[in-house]
Amino acid sequence: MSSEFFPDVPKILYKGPESTDPLSYRHYNPDEVIAGKPMKEWLRFSVCFWHTFVGGGGQDPFGEKTLCRPWEDGISDPIELAKRRIDVAFELFTKLGVPFYTFHDFDVAPEGSTLEESQQNLDTIVAYLKEKQQATGVQLLWATQNLFTHKRYMNGGMTNPSLHTFCYAAASIQKVMDINNALGGQNHVFWGGREGYQSMLNTDFKKECDHMADMYRMAIKYKEAKGYTAQFLIEPKPREPTKHQYDYDAQTCMAFLQTYGLDEHFKLNIEPNHTTLAGHEAAHDIWVSSVYGKLGSIDSNTGDTMLGWDTDNFPMDVAQATAIMSVVLKQGGLGTGGLNFDCKVRRESVDPVDLFIGHIGAMDAYALGLRKAAKMQEEGTLDKMLQERYLTWSTEELGKKIEAGEATLEECAAYAKAQGEPPLVSGKQELYEMIRNRHLYPSH
Amino acid sequence: MSSEFFPDVPKILYKGPESTDPLSYRHYNPDEVIAGKPMKEWLRFSVCFWHTFVGGGGQDPFGEKTLCRPWEDGISDPIELAKRRIDVAFELFTKLGVPFYTFHDFDVAPEGSTLEESQQNLDTIVAYLKEKQQATGVQLLWATQNLFTHKRYMNGGMTNPSLHTFCYAAASIQKVMDINNALGGQNHVFWGGREGYQSMLNTDFKKECDHMADMYRMAIKYKEAKGYTAQFLIEPKPREPTKHQYDYDAQTCMAFLQTYGLDEHFKLNIEPNHTTLAGHEAAHDIWVSSVYGKLGSIDSNTGDTMLGWDTDNFPMDVAQATAIMSVVLKQGGLGTGGLNFDCKVRRESVDPVDLFIGHIGAMDAYALGLRKAAKMQEEGTLDKMLQERYLTWSTEELGKKIEAGEATLEECAAYAKAQGEPPLVSGKQELYEMIRNRHLYPSH
Amino acid sequence: MSSEFFPDVPKILYKGPESTDPLSYRHYNPDEVIAGKPMKEWLRFSVCFWHTFVGGGGQDPFGEKTLCRPWEDGISDPIELAKRRIDVAFELFTKLGVPFYTFHDFDVAPEGSTLEESQQNLDTIVAYLKEKQQATGVQLLWATQNLFTHKRYMNGGMTNPSLHTFCYAAASIQKVMDINNALGGQNHVFWGGREGYQSMLNTDFKKECDHMADMYRMAIKYKEAKGYTAQFLIEPKPREPTKHQYDYDAQTCMAFLQTYGLDEHFKLNIEPNHTTLAGHEAAHDIWVSSVYGKLGSIDSNTGDTMLGWDTDNFPMDVAQATAIMSVVLKQGGLGTGGLNFDCKVRRESVDPVDLFIGHIGAMDAYALGLRKAAKMQEEGTLDKMLQERYLTWSTEELGKKIEAGEATLEECAAYAKAQGEPPLVSGKQELYEMIRNRHLYPSH
Amino acid sequence: MSSEFFPDVPKILYKGPESTDPLSYRHYNPDEVIAGKPMKEWLRFSVCFWHTFVGGGGQDPFGEKTLCRPWEDGISDPIELAKRRIDVAFELFTKLGVPFYTFHDFDVAPEGSTLEESQQNLDTIVAYLKEKQQATGVQLLWATQNLFTHKRYMNGGMTNPSLHTFCYAAASIQKVMDINNALGGQNHVFWGGREGYQSMLNTDFKKECDHMADMYRMAIKYKEAKGYTAQFLIEPKPREPTKHQYDYDAQTCMAFLQTYGLDEHFKLNIEPNHTTLAGHEAAHDIWVSSVYGKLGSIDSNTGDTMLGWDTDNFPMDVAQATAIMSVVLKQGGLGTGGLNFDCKVRRESVDPVDLFIGHIGAMDAYALGLRKAAKMQEEGTLDKMLQERYLTWSTEELGKKIEAGEATLEECAAYAKAQGEPPLVSGKQELYEMIRNRHLYPSH
Repeated sequence: MSSEFFPDVPKILYKGPESTDPLSYRHYNPDEVIAGKPMKEWLRFSVCFWHTFVGGGGQDPFGEKTLCRPWEDGISDPIELAKRRIDVAFELFTKLGVPFYTFHDFDVAPEGSTLEESQQNLDTIVAYLKEKQQATGVQLLWATQNLFTHKRYMNGGMTNPSLHTFCYAAASIQKVMDINNALGGQNHVFWGGREGYQSMLNTDFKKECDHMADMYRMAIKYKEAKGYTAQFLIEPKPREPTKHQYDYDAQTCMAFLQTYGLDEHFKLNIEPNHTTLAGHEAAHDIWVSSVYGKLGSIDSNTGDTMLGWDTDNFPMDVAQATAIMSVVLKQGGLGTGGLNFDCKVRRESVDPVDLFIGHIGAMDAYALGLRKAAKMQEEGTLDKMLQERYLTWSTEELGKKIEAGEATLEECAAYAKAQGEPPLVSGKQELYEMIRNRHLYPSH
Repeated sequence: MSSEFFPDVPKILYKGPESTDPLSYRHYNPDEVIAGKPMKEWLRFSVCFWHTFVGGGGQDPFGEKTLCRPWEDGISDPIELAKRRIDVAFELFTKLGVPFYTFHDFDVAPEGSTLEESQQNLDTIVAYLKEKQQATGVQLLWATQNLFTHKRYMNGGMTNPSLHTFCYAAASIQKVMDINNALGGQNHVFWGGREGYQSMLNTDFKKECDHMADMYRMAIKYKEAKGYTAQFLIEPKPREPTKHQYDYDAQTCMAFLQTYGLDEHFKLNIEPNHTTLAGHEAAHDIWVSSVYGKLGSIDSNTGDTMLGWDTDNFPMDVAQATAIMSVVLKQGGLGTGGLNFDCKVRRESVDPVDLFIGHIGAMDAYALGLRKAAKMQEEGTLDKMLQERYLTWSTEELGKKIEAGEATLEECAAYAKAQGEPPLVSGKQELYEMIRNRHLYPSH
Repeated sequence: MSSEFFPDVPKILYKGPESTDPLSYRHYNPDEVIAGKPMKEWLRFSVCFWHTFVGGGGQDPFGEKTLCRPWEDGISDPIELAKRRIDVAFELFTKLGVPFYTFHDFDVAPEGSTLEESQQNLDTIVAYLKEKQQATGVQLLWATQNLFTHKRYMNGGMTNPSLHTFCYAAASIQKVMDINNALGGQNHVFWGGREGYQSMLNTDFKKECDHMADMYRMAIKYKEAKGYTAQFLIEPKPREPTKHQYDYDAQTCMAFLQTYGLDEHFKLNIEPNHTTLAGHEAAHDIWVSSVYGKLGSIDSNTGDTMLGWDTDNFPMDVAQATAIMSVVLKQGGLGTGGLNFDCKVRRESVDPVDLFIGHIGAMDAYALGLRKAAKMQEEGTLDKMLQERYLTWSTEELGKKIEAGEATLEECAAYAKAQGEPPLVSGKQELYEMIRNRHLYPSH
Repeated sequence: MSSEFFPDVPKILYKGPESTDPLSYRHYNPDEVIAGKPMKEWLRFSVCFWHTFVGGGGQDPFGEKTLCRPWEDGISDPIELAKRRIDVAFELFTKLGVPFYTFHDFDVAPEGSTLEESQQNLDTIVAYLKEKQQATGVQLLWATQNLFTHKRYMNGGMTNPSLHTFCYAAASIQKVMDINNALGGQNHVFWGGREGYQSMLNTDFKKECDHMADMYRMAIKYKEAKGYTAQFLIEPKPREPTKHQYDYDAQTCMAFLQTYGLDEHFKLNIEPNHTTLAGHEAAHDIWVSSVYGKLGSIDSNTGDTMLGWDTDNFPMDVAQATAIMSVVLKQGGLGTGGLNFDCKVRRESVDPVDLFIGHIGAMDAYALGLRKAAKMQEEGTLDKMLQERYLTWSTEELGKKIEAGEATLEECAAYAKAQGEPPLVSGKQELYEMIRNRHLYPSH
């Protein structure tokens, strides 16, 4: 691959923690083995197409585009423009050494004036992507359909009050399933940006959710009929663009899946910025979905808990990355999922090189998080403290009996009466935090 | 019943909307028939014991007790004090004309120094309550066990890391099931104040939730064995006192119930103040639980969306009450549930009469909400607009087929291609709001 | 004026509270006298140009334009398009009977490719606006310069790190002062959308605020030199688009004005949606700025306290409007200010007629708020209760002495010792709320 | 001093970053010179009396006391109990090596049944504290009066509607000024816990603030008359216990001080947990008050941005501590102020030793923050980038003229026209963050 679009950016290499070169990795050393696997297998980094190559170009609700993207200059044909962006993207993927990427259908191809034209555009572009993948070894982590940007989806896609728009959404889902399979995409994400309500007054909550479930059932049938293998993932978000999205957070998604009997067909794609918008600590939904076997993939960005919207910042907080990688370590890795940078450079970061700096900083934060989580786990102090906290459940017969579902309230009450008042046992939160800091900051 | 504790407060009567007497009802006329039932049957008002007769007496994290409760003066024996509070309570219930009340075990009886002593105290008090119920006709809406105030529960009750405390909680649940049944309580509420986590570092999320499910299974077994009939209700709350409660909101509770196969045994007791703390509009959880058949009862208070804690204000917002009563009307009433005033007078509202004013204001707000919701439903404009919004699902064959689970993605895609671009249909939110205002404000 | 753009919308008339016609006023009767003045003088309604005729056309961070604006079809010349929008706008102003409008410079005129071209465009359009104003009697409430949309302002206008951009902003301010004066604009608003910071790391807070003050001083000098009379107004907002705006809320603006000696030259333009984003109740900043003599004008919209961004909804909450109009009544009116609808139809409200419905609903909400506030004030119950609460300050000699600045700590301490423990006086919040509800809901 | 209360806790010593002993400092080495001063002079650590020795003992709005404090057992005389707590406190101060402490009047002495008796108790205790200070060398950072716990203050102290309570507050302020002076307290803090409103309906905002200013003026007069030297500090907090406190945040306090002409007499005592509750990033108010010369002291705790109340956690976040210490370094230290741990152990951290662990963890976090801030400043990369961002203001003549207040809008506009469109300059936020991470994490 020629390096014409970022001529001043070299292949990014690991130079160790002492490096002051912003175009180097200080902590990410892809083939270095941590906790039994190369770092790149734990982290499975992925670059997203939308924020990084299309997006709003820095547009926000109060301002126009800002970002300087010289490679787009002078190209008027939409297909040519799409290919140019793909060329740039694969140069960036390759220089960063990132093994995966992700896209919405109309990030990579231009939407046409009819459904048919849009699908033809997709076919053209998919062929081009396939070549690029083969030439570089970069793989598709997941694809998804955009059911929120076009005005036809203003009242929702899968949950649109109109059958007509619902069917349009169905056509998009089918097509993305096809192209995702063609490109070897390992997962298929459903993010319900406009599947929600703006006002209780004009919404039939139940009917809309029923229709969303109907759509998922048809997608499962289609997947089975075609023999497709991509893991289906739902991505929770509480609100924005709607006032309330039906996929509010991880457990709301679980309720939906169970209510409609869809549980076995889906895992979750968790985004920490969405988690904090739902009022939970950044790693909460990752943790909860992991303990219930539903953590499929991570959109590894970060938000600003002082702001009420999705900022999609590059994650630079090593403490947060450590908490997240601790969960990933405990479940043995992300399977077909990955750490996808659903992140955008700030709209004031207009230089093309800022795209590299954002990704490098974020990759290093997660790589360092992995290193620290692995050392913490290896040392084992915190894990041992945690196990001791719940010890009576395995040392006492009654504990085992309760967990086996064989005890009764009467037995428990008898035990309580026999034992008298329980002793107070310190929760030791400050000690846990102090020990975590010892791992986060092993030196001055 | 003698009226010795509130000598200046008469029996509160309906005097119509013109009344300027704060000790009258302007909108609540218990036997007046609205939408086919007397108001009192739609509203099923209930007074809670904790805030109104025990509570912190106005204590807050920065200040001591403030409330003037002269009837407690000079009584040192805890059983006598408990009985005195009950006398006062039933005078208030009767004067207000409220047909129900609710309590935690140690609101009505003093906790003893041992489990046995506590249970004896409960027996004494239950006998006293039974007499009072018979004498006045006031009934028990629900009882619940307090698994959060005593320091033994600082790390949780059902989810305590220690088996010992778990068993203590089991004993309390068993006892409350017994006394609730003895008093004819129509529901049994579980609120998991400390069933949650303060720090991810020292918590095994999954194990704690497993234990909570174990406890519920034992309670179900006990209920069946004894032939008890009270409806089990879980009460969602996102946080406070813990950083994160496992019963975060309505749909999180549904996920829990389904994950652990407990769904058929529980409904939800929804509190709007908890709903707003979880980031949803006040009526959201009531609405969601209703559409999924899980709305069991309502703790009809209100919060302050600018504040991040549970203020438990008396609900005086008629627009909010109207939204809630619209849901209740649609589901045909609250069944065994009711509108329980889990509300406290402000700590600066120190006069005993303020207890009456708070309840009267709140009852009037809900009564007016019922009146408005009923008129809105009777006129039918909003309902008709809503139905028309979803009309294609019943007029088009494909719509019915999708809803019957018999359609495929291919069929939908074919429909979309045949129909072309869907037309844009205005969501008309401003018009819905304007029409709602016409009902909220029929006159200047 | 011909009615070609909204052929189906008649002149909106007052038809009284019984009216079910959405294209009528139920409460706003412009010439009816309330509290000694015609309603139109208390309310001084104004339509904003940006959301209503330009804006994003329904665009949001996740979606493209949606709104149907047929009058723009087929017009490619930017000046012609600007004039067409003005024609449409004045038809709407006139049909609504709204006496004022507001704009940013590049709402009404297209920005050119140079500063000179932009200013020529403005001159052309100002001449056109002048004609329209004369033909219709509609007046300009205020104009403002847009220092946030163009990418040159991405790092701020008045607070840009670069002198060059600061000077560009200065040129815009000067020009808007000129055209505002030419059009008889009664106020000049400064909203610092990008005057703030995105990150503490790359910001010199003090230097940026110093420069903002420098700019204001130059604007004051220019105003005085030219003999312009428009009242300068600063509009507080806590964040969005920046992470933190220097004009956070009303009192932050006051601190800024006093710190830099600018106090006498400015009042505030308060927007309730900004107030709630800053963590205050909707009417708080209006109240605070009024009691300190700084309430200049109101951007009368409403937000959604569950959402963390500026939704700019049409205000339909009569309780909120009543609270706001109570403040306006107490200060005797808004002077040169008004109630400017900085509101946008929901992006799903795509029909042109929705523009009318939004404004009518909002005008009726404020008109009803005025009616209720006036009756509440006339009855006087709440005001009397409030005065009695503070009575000791005027009945006791020491109270007067303290207020006169003539007392000492020693005297106060002596008084406290002499009087002993102060009695507890109930704050009666529930009673105040009950009485407010009596005014909000005089009938069922 | 005998070590009877914490027999198992040794004098805490610096053992370097490798230490795994939780009862050691890893980063705090009091006499080590950093940036030209011993660490202890930059940090001026202080322990607060209320949370650590009195407080609620673990009480929260839903639960009783939990903390195990064996030294209080069996002491019934309030003065003896107060002295015992002081003995324990000075043992903790000494073992930690903390040079300062802080208190509210009724933290250290019991409140009596009359003002006179309360003041006698204070005199007794002050004598005892004086001895302790002399024996240990520990000094008083600041004292403050508690105007929020006693029920007489339920409607405010300085802003109480009643003159009588205002005077009671005045007596308390006078007394605390006296004892603070007697004990060599270096500052006097005013925190207005109940100086605010619960409801707009029953509040005269202006009158209440006028009275607060009256009180401050009397305190200044008294201070001058007595020749006292303690620096007056106001402590901002947005809400809790009231719905809205008048001292909302740093800039609101500045507005108040300037409005009432009190500016020169006060600095601010900033608490990061209060700052985040006001919607600002943790270090924001520290930064803002510093750049305007108003940073007097810091209540160095941390909150949880997911929670809406004051959690007063021990600060363990090194990134946050680094941001704060960067501000302190830039202003050359805290003067008479310090880093006061207004922190409480979690209510589940019931062991006495948890008091040490919390303080040690927090002291280490701040010590490490100081080390990192100093290295960052010494390397100078970030400072240099920041200066370059604003370079045109010092290199261009017009920049200097504007800053000198000598330029006009016309000159600026002429400059803009001459220069044409300003170039876009990247804000480089990601690069700043990457460089910060290089300092936060110099090694794996």
